[in-house]
Amino acid sequence: MKKTIFSVKNIWLIAFAIGFLFQGFSSFAQTQSKESKATWIWYPGDFEVWLSNKIQVRRTEREAVFPPLWQYYSPYALVTFQTEVDIPELDEIKIYSEGTFQLLLDGVQVYGQPKSIKIPAGKHKISFKVYNQEVLPAIYIAGKYVKSDASWKVTNEDKLWIDETGKAQQSGTPWVPVGSWNFDSPESKPSGFKLTTIPWNAKKTEKIGAGQLVDFGKETFGYIKIHGLKGKGKVALYYGESREEALDTAKCETLDHLSFDGNQPETYTHNGSKAFRYVRVQADPTVKYDSISMLYEYLPLDYRGAFKSSDQELNKIWDVSAYTMQLTTREFFVDGIKRDRWVWSGDAYQSYLMNYYLFFDSASVERTLLALRGKEPVTAHVNIIMDYSLYWFVGVYDYYLHTGDTKFIKTFYPRMKSLMEFCLERRNKNGFLEPLEGDWVFIDWADGLPKKGEVSFEQMLLARSLEAMAVSAEIAGEKEDQKQYQKLAADLKTKLFDVFWDKKENVMKHQRIDGKMQDIVTRYANMFGIFFNYFNEEQKQSIKKKVLLNDKILQITTPYMRFYELEALCAMGEQNYVLKEMKDYWGGMLKEGATSFWEEYNPNKKGTEHLAMYGRPYGKSLCHAWGSSPIYLLGKYYLGVKPLKPGYSEYEIKPNLGGLEWMEGKVPTPKGEISVYCSKTAIKIKAAEGEGKLIFESQSKPKTNSGTITELSKNKYQLTVQPNVEYQISYKVVK
Amino acid sequence: MKKTIFSVKNIWLIAFAIGFLFQGFSSFAQTQSKESKATWIWYPGDFEVWLSNKIQVRRTEREAVFPPLWQYYSPYALVTFQTEVDIPELDEIKIYSEGTFQLLLDGVQVYGQPKSIKIPAGKHKISFKVYNQEVLPAIYIAGKYVKSDASWKVTNEDKLWIDETGKAQQSGTPWVPVGSWNFDSPESKPSGFKLTTIPWNAKKTEKIGAGQLVDFGKETFGYIKIHGLKGKGKVALYYGESREEALDTAKCETLDHLSFDGNQPETYTHNGSKAFRYVRVQADPTVKYDSISMLYEYLPLDYRGAFKSSDQELNKIWDVSAYTMQLTTREFFVDGIKRDRWVWSGDAYQSYLMNYYLFFDSASVERTLLALRGKEPVTAHVNIIMDYSLYWFVGVYDYYLHTGDTKFIKTFYPRMKSLMEFCLERRNKNGFLEPLEGDWVFIDWADGLPKKGEVSFEQMLLARSLEAMAVSAEIAGEKEDQKQYQKLAADLKTKLFDVFWDKKENVMKHQRIDGKMQDIVTRYANMFGIFFNYFNEEQKQSIKKKVLLNDKILQITTPYMRFYELEALCAMGEQNYVLKEMKDYWGGMLKEGATSFWEEYNPNKKGTEHLAMYGRPYGKSLCHAWGSSPIYLLGKYYLGVKPLKPGYSEYEIKPNLGGLEWMEGKVPTPKGEISVYCSKTAIKIKAAEGEGKLIFESQSKPKTNSGTITELSKNKYQLTVQPNVEYQISYKVVK
Repeated sequence: MKKTIFSVKNIWLIAFAIGFLFQGFSSFAQTQSKESKATWIWYPGDFEVWLSNKIQVRRTEREAVFPPLWQYYSPYALVTFQTEVDIPELDEIKIYSEGTFQLLLDGVQVYGQPKSIKIPAGKHKISFKVYNQEVLPAIYIAGKYVKSDASWKVTNEDKLWIDETGKAQQSGTPWVPVGSWNFDSPESKPSGFKLTTIPWNAKKTEKIGAGQLVDFGKETFGYIKIHGLKGKGKVALYYGESREEALDTAKCETLDHLSFDGNQPETYTHNGSKAFRYVRVQADPTVKYDSISMLYEYLPLDYRGAFKSSDQELNKIWDVSAYTMQLTTREFFVDGIKRDRWVWSGDAYQSYLMNYYLFFDSASVERTLLALRGKEPVTAHVNIIMDYSLYWFVGVYDYYLHTGDTKFIKTFYPRMKSLMEFCLERRNKNGFLEPLEGDWVFIDWADGLPKKGEVSFEQMLLARSLEAMAVSAEIAGEKEDQKQYQKLAADLKTKLFDVFWDKKENVMKHQRIDGKMQDIVTRYANMFGIFFNYFNEEQKQSIKKKVLLNDKILQITTPYMRFYELEALCAMGEQNYVLKEMKDYWGGMLKEGATSFWEEYNPNKKGTEHLAMYGRPYGKSLCHAWGSSPIYLLGKYYLGVKPLKPGYSEYEIKPNLGGLEWMEGKVPTPKGEISVYCSKTAIKIKAAEGEGKLIFESQSKPKTNSGTITELSKNKYQLTVQPNVEYQISYKVVK
Repeated sequence: MKKTIFSVKNIWLIAFAIGFLFQGFSSFAQTQSKESKATWIWYPGDFEVWLSNKIQVRRTEREAVFPPLWQYYSPYALVTFQTEVDIPELDEIKIYSEGTFQLLLDGVQVYGQPKSIKIPAGKHKISFKVYNQEVLPAIYIAGKYVKSDASWKVTNEDKLWIDETGKAQQSGTPWVPVGSWNFDSPESKPSGFKLTTIPWNAKKTEKIGAGQLVDFGKETFGYIKIHGLKGKGKVALYYGESREEALDTAKCETLDHLSFDGNQPETYTHNGSKAFRYVRVQADPTVKYDSISMLYEYLPLDYRGAFKSSDQELNKIWDVSAYTMQLTTREFFVDGIKRDRWVWSGDAYQSYLMNYYLFFDSASVERTLLALRGKEPVTAHVNIIMDYSLYWFVGVYDYYLHTGDTKFIKTFYPRMKSLMEFCLERRNKNGFLEPLEGDWVFIDWADGLPKKGEVSFEQMLLARSLEAMAVSAEIAGEKEDQKQYQKLAADLKTKLFDVFWDKKENVMKHQRIDGKMQDIVTRYANMFGIFFNYFNEEQKQSIKKKVLLNDKILQITTPYMRFYELEALCAMGEQNYVLKEMKDYWGGMLKEGATSFWEEYNPNKKGTEHLAMYGRPYGKSLCHAWGSSPIYLLGKYYLGVKPLKPGYSEYEIKPNLGGLEWMEGKVPTPKGEISVYCSKTAIKIKAAEGEGKLIFESQSKPKTNSGTITELSKNKYQLTVQPNVEYQISYKVVK
């Protein structure tokens, strides 16, 4: 039932309209153009909360659902979207929504739930109040000029009331910019979001007992399909990341029991996704089928990073790392695809970094940050883990540094601030964080690692988080906050060193309890301080010798903390040593037949011992994002590319062969890539944007085809790199 | 797939179980008995939030949905229910849930989603973690001994994690007692909640134009039914609380456009509820039907209060008030059934009070308080109105006083505290509330009433709210809070009088702006101070004369504030005057043909002027809860019954005929009722519980059949009333 504003019947509505127009036209005036694309919009962060709630309960343990142990937030069920436009001619707009809505055009309620309305030429304020308790409230508005897009605003409490004279009153409405992604057509609704699937065939099938063992050739993820299915009865699917796991029907971590009544179609696609390489199929005799295949499910992302070298094993390590990232980069960066299938902040922090050297996908980083942070009120640390709250802040900073994006910080600064307030309130009277009731201090899976009291590692992460908050406050235009966070960070760093830096040993100590420094040195704060650049050169050298290369210091046995240990060594110029470590550790997994990298790898274990963890024979995840650190290490410390200013407006290339004959690769940047070739005698560089410094060492005086090489010190040279120039440098590597 | 704890397969699970059992068995041990009944349970307050979200978007204005203007909270999508039991023999328990769940028995995960499990004799900890994003997560557990009921606990963040040794860790989990109501069977799920319906026939049908006007005889609410429906085409239903409204198809407030394809059943029941007395039906010529009836929808509650008297008109006023309460007491106490169909705190505050003299239904009060308060964080006043936050606190106190219930306060004290913190933070440097951006200061619909700056009425409500918080803090065991709130209340009352009490005029002034007292006196703070007992006798008498009975003071024109005005006069002994007012005002509506009491009544209006409001010809609600004040006034100030101590453990009866020949009635108490008969020469009392004081005036020395009458002062007598005794007193009313 279409209505136009020309048939207004009510004095009250006119009064309402007049009041409405007068009281707040200014701030949102948009120039609507024909060029922008309509897209589904929602309350920012709510899509991610809704989706993460949904996918994290997909974790199962032998058919039991296994939801997370932290709080689930919810989307706002009632939101008001609003835009102000100034259009050159009449525009008929089509209206799609997820939820019932109230439409106000220039303050006048439009009756019915119109599928389209005509907006006359000129200035207008259009608002949609949408209700949906079941799924995310969202709208898609498509006209020639008027389109739902990122320029719209939204609120969860519009506070629009009518006074006794009929005049509309509205003040203190908390407007925020809408969230949106790539739901760019009416049919592509946010609530229908699905990853992409593509059919994959099995590589090999064996008869096992009365059933079959199907091998898909490598670790994979998706939905099992049964072809030529006939009959009535049960079919059991036992999944295994390893052959042993799939064969062990009593103890495999995941399984599905299917039941058919005889009326099913011949091609059956299971509706539950799983991680596996192998599937053991056992069907009742009354059920027959021809074959098993799968739908491989994935998030379509290009490999924008690349790496190849003279070392075949290293190349394989890079390829398998990339594939592991591909498998674990889904609705969000998840920890592992068999388990937990949850979003953990510590794991994700590493995925963001590896992402910058592989996919450079901003949307995945933002979705994950938002899912982790949740909403208000903050009642526990992110994932209830103290360090995981702190990684979250640093993750936001890294995101800004690599992409140059300020919109995320501007939109979500209030949530950054409230999480930081939660953390700051949990400091003790010394200004240090120590665990209160309900806090889990994780650090790492490490037998015998003490975690009580004041742990230096947590304070160092807090200092870095405060620096991240200072940068974010400035971006958000909060000068007072910026000053406060800068001071807090500086004071904490001073206190950190005063208390934990051992002046005699020249290393950082691990822990103080009730004012007494404990006599233990660990790697964590020592490693992070190196690549956070909190130590001077002398301190770094001392740490390298006494901690990083010292086997007496508690050893790290997870790829999680090895990531940082190897990064610290690379930052200290130990690329040759780290290369050997990578080939040894990751190569060790490859020798064990890994087709994706594992949650944990202990070279001293044998056979099926490799598969066990948490006291369960197949408890270990054989495809864990944090196993992919070679992507990051090779890109940042071998190709040697990293941003110096946000968004690669300024960057650095410090190639380091680490013992290789040659290497070549690409590192993505916001709008392009930096390609690097490096051998012992030649370096080739091409960058799409920004201004870079190529820094390298050469025994002899190097030559370039373009630009000017300056000498920084003996054997150390620098070349300024401009965009879209193919630089070819001849030099001689220093042994 | 049933599992018993005797087939535990994993060392890890045993370790988990041992850790789990050790670390927190004590606090919840329950004696499960065969007598308690199983019921559906949920996170407390979440059912009310979920249901109020759903029903408040049912408001329509000529087909457009009209959702509320304040924030909608959401139920927690992931919750963990837990109980600890000690049972004498094996118990097979049936499991029903709304949502997928993870079941832990003594810390051991039970695989699958069992429909039942066997719990062995002895002590056990049972927990269900339930996920449901679409509707409220809830469970129903029914065994012989183990049953889901109000003794269970629930949390929205269980923080149960496994450390590297496989041991379960859990600390700082915020457990709260579950919410439940009367969903006492597996089929009766919370998400399926519906009010009761019963078929009603039309009283009269007239041919109007090409259609019909159907008259149901009185204001009603429910779903229209069409009988003998045949054909393809449209049927329009135009609803009217008045005949004029239903006839006016262009301007009636609510309507439905139905469309039939020819394949519909012959009996059609519309799925949208509406308020109406009349319905105008216009069908396309291609659609035929035999008759129109309705399904009347209601919340089944008994009238536990009663009132009859020598005055037929007054009796009718009581009956119509009770019917108005019946229509507006639904999923929650709503303001009006045509509009807004929302839950407003000011309206509800009056409904609670009227409820105590009619239904005495605790569940309706609790549901409404919870829907209004919502959850965290508090970002605006309740309904965005300052006074409405304050009524909320006083409403909780009144609930405690009338019912004696402490469980509500103990469970929801944190939400009381956070709302009060929100209010206190909005005080200015003088410690007074004045409106900040986004605050609506309502007070009443009153032309020309100034509402800016420091308004005395708001400070008086805040003082009362602080007293309510002090009582609540004590119940919740928060002694420090109690002291703090007591002091805040006392200080505020002192300041209120220092600033606003005019010592010359001996009345309370209305408003101070920027330190300057405004020269205006209004009724509000003056009225409330009387029945809050903030004034001494001399102050009360001055106010009665100079404000309450003074027509020069801005007059009240809504039944909303008339409720309090008449209450203040009754509290001052003006029952005769108030009786005339009631007959005049409410009788006036009856003379206009009202079958329920209105949102507003101005006796000076004529004809259809009575139907208009907000600039719309039928904008007025003709069935508004706040029109039912006679229920409260007659019960409290004529029958004269009120509690003195929580739950009527001590109470008072002060009958006042106010000019009637006789009256009789009942006032409900938690476990029974107090019946009162009073004529000019006899008083009969019977009470089910508690200890009461009957206080009355008699010209001559009164006699009683039981108990002892003591003389308080000249002509003033008192009798102590014990339960279950029929007292008969002969006396002589003082003229």
